[in-house]
Amino acid sequence: MIKILVDCFGGDHCPEAPVEGSLRALAANPELEIGLLGDENILKDQLAGKDYDASRLEIIHAPEVIGCHEKPTDVVRLKRNSSMMKGIILLRDDDEVAALVSTGSTGALVTGALVRLGRIPGVIRPAFCPLLPTMDGSLVGICDSGANVEVTSAHLRQFAIMASLYMENVYGVKNPRVALLNVGSEAEKGDSVRQETYPLLQQTEGLNFVGNMESRDLLSGKYDVVVADGFSGNVLVKTTEGTALELLKKIKKDIYSRPLYKLGALLMKRMFREEKEFMNYQNYGGSVLLGTSKVVVKGHGSSNAVAVEKCIEQAYRMEVSGLSAQIEREIAKYEHYED
Amino acid sequence: MIKILVDCFGGDHCPEAPVEGSLRALAANPELEIGLLGDENILKDQLAGKDYDASRLEIIHAPEVIGCHEKPTDVVRLKRNSSMMKGIILLRDDDEVAALVSTGSTGALVTGALVRLGRIPGVIRPAFCPLLPTMDGSLVGICDSGANVEVTSAHLRQFAIMASLYMENVYGVKNPRVALLNVGSEAEKGDSVRQETYPLLQQTEGLNFVGNMESRDLLSGKYDVVVADGFSGNVLVKTTEGTALELLKKIKKDIYSRPLYKLGALLMKRMFREEKEFMNYQNYGGSVLLGTSKVVVKGHGSSNAVAVEKCIEQAYRMEVSGLSAQIEREIAKYEHYED
Repeated sequence: MIKILVDCFGGDHCPEAPVEGSLRALAANPELEIGLLGDENILKDQLAGKDYDASRLEIIHAPEVIGCHEKPTDVVRLKRNSSMMKGIILLRDDDEVAALVSTGSTGALVTGALVRLGRIPGVIRPAFCPLLPTMDGSLVGICDSGANVEVTSAHLRQFAIMASLYMENVYGVKNPRVALLNVGSEAEKGDSVRQETYPLLQQTEGLNFVGNMESRDLLSGKYDVVVADGFSGNVLVKTTEGTALELLKKIKKDIYSRPLYKLGALLMKRMFREEKEFMNYQNYGGSVLLGTSKVVVKGHGSSNAVAVEKCIEQAYRMEVSGLSAQIEREIAKYEHYED
Repeated sequence: MIKILVDCFGGDHCPEAPVEGSLRALAANPELEIGLLGDENILKDQLAGKDYDASRLEIIHAPEVIGCHEKPTDVVRLKRNSSMMKGIILLRDDDEVAALVSTGSTGALVTGALVRLGRIPGVIRPAFCPLLPTMDGSLVGICDSGANVEVTSAHLRQFAIMASLYMENVYGVKNPRVALLNVGSEAEKGDSVRQETYPLLQQTEGLNFVGNMESRDLLSGKYDVVVADGFSGNVLVKTTEGTALELLKKIKKDIYSRPLYKLGALLMKRMFREEKEFMNYQNYGGSVLLGTSKVVVKGHGSSNAVAVEKCIEQAYRMEVSGLSAQIEREIAKYEHYED
């Protein structure tokens, strides 16, 4: 049995989406146990009349609510009975608990994980690694995408190692092709951090470093892992999502400009729906936090029940893959590079 | 009369595209004079049999060729008779020459402009400002997009001032809405450079600073100028272009998967062509270099004749707008911030 905690009071569709997602995950996986974090009464109401295996579902009372504009450090310090912070503390203290899934505040989750949960031995900074679909049907992981806005080359090398192991162990990608996000393909391109990182990645044994990637090529299918600082990685991921959404919105609008287009679009209705689903990042799970001592998965704030289910599934796979031990082992080989 | 130099030996379609683009611009604008830079014999061959006003077209012999992999500093030092470097030196020395348009190496152009051409008094670093189309039909300028991969808040403030004046004077945008590219909307988001820049932009009189922008919203039409360091600005622009192109390519491929889709697409053929043209950055001119003592416009390496024509038109409008004097005047108000 693997037990995963689900924060039910963060995100736009709370607590419906986390609760419903949890029940779906429970039904799909008999090896799974879930702890729902949040206000007990509200959660009981949500569960009333639902059909599920009660022996594998627990409610963990955590009544405090985190406001939108609360500072992450304040949340960590003052809101220990919020669903998110209680989850992090339980994850740390309870050996039975394997992972936490949350669709709540990114800042609070990162800060909480850093301060209360701790890191895999040797890891300097945990980093996010969301996935995007590429045009040849594969997935590409972007690490980091927002946990660390300021980084050194030692950080970036660790992001590369962790994300490569993640794609290999959790997604079965053989010898993942790792690229460094940069402003050009040549080795000497970019700022001093990038110039230092390039040879460091080349020297990292066991890492299939294929060189710099220009952001234009993210969806080409040529890369399995893209290494970035949290600032430009965030820009990379959000620009991709934003452009795809805006473009599909524009096409939809333009369709209504002429009857002929409307007719054409009618014939292609299913295709357009598929394109939209294809670019819907919720279909590819959450943004996992790599490098924390236990598994943490951050779902998008707008996650629906299916998206939450995918995050739980992802956390489960990370736990059974033994990823943390692998990361510890690989990072240890380069410990002398940690400043 | 305004005289603009066109570098005919950089870019993928050389010298055809620059020469053809120059002739188109000459025909469209009787106030324009053009100097074509490059190997005299090749240029003469290109012009043979073409119909144009020879009194407004000059060939400037510059036979040296810049290799793809030459270092920008070597180009500036050693290739003074290349079309690009000769153009920069003439721009500096000849009062009759107003601007240079080039589709050649970005690195060599920036370095050459910095070393040989110089800056508008008060400007710390020139910066690129390419334009992208938004979903409500307006244009958004991104400054910087690659000239400066490492920046301070003083740089970013100058980019904001220069790009705002550019959108106002050259594109007629009234009181341009200026945003700071960041990883979240709150003032305290981002790295230390962003945290310092936010209040600096708020305090800048005459600047319509509307706050942080998440990259997801670039094409929303809510912003006229986005301020960024050259690294993340480069990621922002290239990811937008790359995602749009890949997505349209995917749609095109998927259309062929079912006869019904093919029929639908046939009815929508014109629309798809229009979407492709809409997202084709070449239609919106080049990436102007703001802050140099004279006008420099960098066209995309893949520019065709129409794209080169647009770059020349853009350079012309920048010159007649008196933008440089405006930038000098506004920057002077904040000179004490230049560290």
